[in-house]
Amino acid sequence: MAIEFLKGHGTENDFVLLPDPSGGLELTPGRIAALCDRQRGLGADGVLRVIRAEALGIASEGEWFMDYHNADGSVAEMCGNGMRVFARYLVESGLESGPEFVVGSRAGDRRVAVRPDGSVTVWMGPAAITGASVAIVDGRSFSGVAVNVGNPHLVSIVDDDVAELDLHAEPRYDTDFFPEGVNLEFVNPVGEGALRMRVHERGVGETRSCGTGTVAAVAAALHLAGTDTGESTVDIPGGRVTVGLQRGDATLTGPAEFVARGQLRDDWWTRHG
Amino acid sequence: MAIEFLKGHGTENDFVLLPDPSGGLELTPGRIAALCDRQRGLGADGVLRVIRAEALGIASEGEWFMDYHNADGSVAEMCGNGMRVFARYLVESGLESGPEFVVGSRAGDRRVAVRPDGSVTVWMGPAAITGASVAIVDGRSFSGVAVNVGNPHLVSIVDDDVAELDLHAEPRYDTDFFPEGVNLEFVNPVGEGALRMRVHERGVGETRSCGTGTVAAVAAALHLAGTDTGESTVDIPGGRVTVGLQRGDATLTGPAEFVARGQLRDDWWTRHG
Repeated sequence: MAIEFLKGHGTENDFVLLPDPSGGLELTPGRIAALCDRQRGLGADGVLRVIRAEALGIASEGEWFMDYHNADGSVAEMCGNGMRVFARYLVESGLESGPEFVVGSRAGDRRVAVRPDGSVTVWMGPAAITGASVAIVDGRSFSGVAVNVGNPHLVSIVDDDVAELDLHAEPRYDTDFFPEGVNLEFVNPVGEGALRMRVHERGVGETRSCGTGTVAAVAAALHLAGTDTGESTVDIPGGRVTVGLQRGDATLTGPAEFVARGQLRDDWWTRHG
Repeated sequence: MAIEFLKGHGTENDFVLLPDPSGGLELTPGRIAALCDRQRGLGADGVLRVIRAEALGIASEGEWFMDYHNADGSVAEMCGNGMRVFARYLVESGLESGPEFVVGSRAGDRRVAVRPDGSVTVWMGPAAITGASVAIVDGRSFSGVAVNVGNPHLVSIVDDDVAELDLHAEPRYDTDFFPEGVNLEFVNPVGEGALRMRVHERGVGETRSCGTGTVAAVAAALHLAGTDTGESTVDIPGGRVTVGLQRGDATLTGPAEFVARGQLRDDWWTRHG
């Protein structure tokens, strides 16, 4: 009954992956929170359960479903960084023959391609330009392009080095324009098809990586150049990804790394049930 | 060549334990820092290498030596919480038959006793009362008893609920009295032989647990009651320990928990060499 796990990350957004093909694991919110606790558990930003779509009774073109949970135990729809780790696992473990296949998620099916170097491309769907708005951080105004990638973003191209920005203060933004909050991206163009970015995620604060944020940044930069098609690298604190847009439809390519695999202690699992 | 590890914690002070009896692992500071990185690695407050004392050429009454490293890759002398996890591992893996034995450390040999419930007692050596001093935190003065438990402490018995204290500010203290810095303990007596405590560790900030800090707290409370012998529980944010003093010589008893065991990825180990 030993419970298997893997620990991995995508641009330093890290996950505990639990292979559970037929859905036999009792994954309570309390257990997920304990697993993600960095002192009492394994520690992670979230849990990815590897389960057959049919075991969850969810219709999907894909055989496998990414059952994603946040570190607080709540269910989440989709996570681009997690999807890369998930897809690489499926190929390495022989559950998918690759290189291209479909994975189910609560946000719908996602096409993925696992490359020989272990990096993974995820088809992210449309990045829609929705207007312009302004955010205020630490008393300073940042005007930007609003982009919806399934979730809302405001992308500001800034003149100063983004590394110098102080993003500790709680940002203010137009709550009529963004009634459900907004993720803020601060971007430096650093050459042809190359951006550097920092991101403040709603409800979290600054993070080392935000997959949809990098897509929004490239969509905004292309929009300001008068197009919805192109490609760019994006350097974020957690590493480098590449975003491609084809008439507004996005792909996100980036690393998926595994650190370790192992077994949870039975007594630990039982105690945190 | 798969490298084995265990992940565990003592009152939420957490460790990666690396069994390496004959010292074959190339444990560079960079690898230790990467292992302890909570996103890129396994994540921990420190690494405990399980190695024979003779493999390190260190004289010890014990067969096994706790080779402890901080999360930044530096070498540390001793860690009471880590010693509990280390000792429980030796008994569970059959490397020591228990229940009582000696473990080597850079601070010298330590006697330990592993109990049937998995808790562990560590003989901590003398807790010496060295005087009285004052610390200032967030503009407020805390007078206290200075205690040396191999490292320096200042223990303040406070009237307010310690849970309400704001320990975010960098504390000020008498640098003549504590030239190498000081750990600050804030203590509420909560009954006969029962303390509640929070701790600010030098160079770290507030932590969930500090083994020598709990020893200092009980030594100070007994000293104020006119004795150097007695026993008390200490509730800290990470759990409960029990400290005994016999004419100033201390034992510390507390939990040692394992979360998981597994193998590091070869490519991860190689990449972080």
